[in-house]
Amino acid sequence: MKNNESQSEKTAREAREKRRNRDEKLQVPFHFADRLNVAIKAKGSAICVGLDPRLEQVPSFIKEKQAKLHENPMTIAAESILEFNKGIIDAVADLVPVVKPQVAFYEQYGYEGMRAYEETLWYARDKGLLTIADIKRGDIGSTAEAYAKAFLGKVDLFGKEVFSFDADAVTVSPYLGYDGIKPFMTEARKHGKGVFILVKTSNVSSADLQDLQIKEGNTIYEVMAQFVESWGADDLGKDGYSLVGAVVGATFPDQARELRKMMPNNIFLVPGYGAQGGTATDVAACFNKDGLGAVINSSRGITFAWESSDIFTEKDYAEAARAAVMGMKRDLDGVLK
Amino acid sequence: MKNNESQSEKTAREAREKRRNRDEKLQVPFHFADRLNVAIKAKGSAICVGLDPRLEQVPSFIKEKQAKLHENPMTIAAESILEFNKGIIDAVADLVPVVKPQVAFYEQYGYEGMRAYEETLWYARDKGLLTIADIKRGDIGSTAEAYAKAFLGKVDLFGKEVFSFDADAVTVSPYLGYDGIKPFMTEARKHGKGVFILVKTSNVSSADLQDLQIKEGNTIYEVMAQFVESWGADDLGKDGYSLVGAVVGATFPDQARELRKMMPNNIFLVPGYGAQGGTATDVAACFNKDGLGAVINSSRGITFAWESSDIFTEKDYAEAARAAVMGMKRDLDGVLK
Repeated sequence: MKNNESQSEKTAREAREKRRNRDEKLQVPFHFADRLNVAIKAKGSAICVGLDPRLEQVPSFIKEKQAKLHENPMTIAAESILEFNKGIIDAVADLVPVVKPQVAFYEQYGYEGMRAYEETLWYARDKGLLTIADIKRGDIGSTAEAYAKAFLGKVDLFGKEVFSFDADAVTVSPYLGYDGIKPFMTEARKHGKGVFILVKTSNVSSADLQDLQIKEGNTIYEVMAQFVESWGADDLGKDGYSLVGAVVGATFPDQARELRKMMPNNIFLVPGYGAQGGTATDVAACFNKDGLGAVINSSRGITFAWESSDIFTEKDYAEAARAAVMGMKRDLDGVLK
Repeated sequence: MKNNESQSEKTAREAREKRRNRDEKLQVPFHFADRLNVAIKAKGSAICVGLDPRLEQVPSFIKEKQAKLHENPMTIAAESILEFNKGIIDAVADLVPVVKPQVAFYEQYGYEGMRAYEETLWYARDKGLLTIADIKRGDIGSTAEAYAKAFLGKVDLFGKEVFSFDADAVTVSPYLGYDGIKPFMTEARKHGKGVFILVKTSNVSSADLQDLQIKEGNTIYEVMAQFVESWGADDLGKDGYSLVGAVVGATFPDQARELRKMMPNNIFLVPGYGAQGGTATDVAACFNKDGLGAVINSSRGITFAWESSDIFTEKDYAEAARAAVMGMKRDLDGVLK
């Protein structure tokens, strides 16, 4: 391994740590749901931009530029993704409250990819965006604690507590039950962060397990909704929303309507709008009467909007993403009035 | 980002790629279950060593050495973990068929940690060990595909297919149903690799979801066992075992006995022995009559054996691990005869 840090890298790392520690002290309101709601109101939209960069779809001018700067193909891939993300973030930062990078698309490129993941989270934070690390982790207690510290909390480095990936929220998978969730809630509470638990996912075979009916008559996703509601009940912010949220797919609007009633105080993270088939009418059921309670994610439909456009070329990918966000905003506003 | 690759790094990377491509062509038998069974027979043990390095428990002489070599605390942490792992791997490579690094303990240290993860997998492979990446990933189809390529298959890098983390098997979480599992099976089939699906985990609150009884009378973990059996039925190796296995905790021996009958052709990855409370008698139920069908994992009980020893000091942590493996082998042999 080559790892000797240069003086400029050291200076940058220390400045970042210092700034982050100051920000943490100033962060008001501190509760995740309040922070998210403030951001939603400020931006006038509940849109979450999914940053799921597929290398083959990243504009070639970016890849060509990075290929001139680096030799290792993994590095070229990771740097291309990062540059692409920065363009998207710059283009949408004033329009949306939150972005959600899906970690699988970064892990593909090994540790170089994970460096791009970390830098993407930092860059988004610098531009005033909240971040949801879409990691869907879930494990036994001691392991979940390690994940929770990695993505939400601080890691003990020889007696000094340091943020690692430092997202504002994570997605978590509930197969292992409460002791796999609790460590995430602990870190979330400590650092004004949030946890979105998978309840009803947007994919077709979500039915395999989630739609099974238990003896008492409920489906598994309904049981999970009860868990989410009760696990999050003690951690409400000023607006009455919990730091524990739920992932509820836009592709199942009837279930979403029912789940909205079952979890009135939990924010929904809603994937499945756009490319996966969910419409504005479908996602309308995910909001409460106060106009809050949901963030609607779109990934490919925004980040690769230029591909299905007659107006934009790959050079204008960021502008195309901005236009797509504005279109999505109009679309959602139309059904939410 | 600093990323310009030095000439020696480039040479090392290319040599590794070349060797790996040659190995892949020579890899006989190619089916994962056969490869695992050959290794189990050769080593005379079905022990899996869990590499879950907890920095605070890594011997201080390692950390002090790395602190002299590097400046960034994350790098020191990652390098310490890697050196620790190498010591363990060297000490146990002739005794066990497989190691299982749990990715959470590496992700804690950001991309530097993930570099240590990658290097650990490579080092273990070089020492003739199979590797299980304990990642418990699970997502919708297109995302699961990215994970599957990252950890089992090859990633497309500008037209060239390259292995990324390149483990021999992964653990996968089933909450999203079959379309979240299928991409892992596809990559496993292509590259002689395996997939272990969570069925009944070793933690106390595994009951929250996994023990729920569905209308038809089965529990969720039994439903999952039926899925695992049927999903893996078409991919059997010479010994009759599937490339799709199941995670079944040692802490629930009655359920393990029942699950063994339900999934006769699926290899069990069994966590929970030792530190978590599972005994040799408990895990005996996980094996078939042919003496195969299970690998028993122990993590802390082996890697940090020196801590609970009167004979070994931290300097001898690797020797202590070796002794712990031999003790575990005697323990298992005692009940498997």
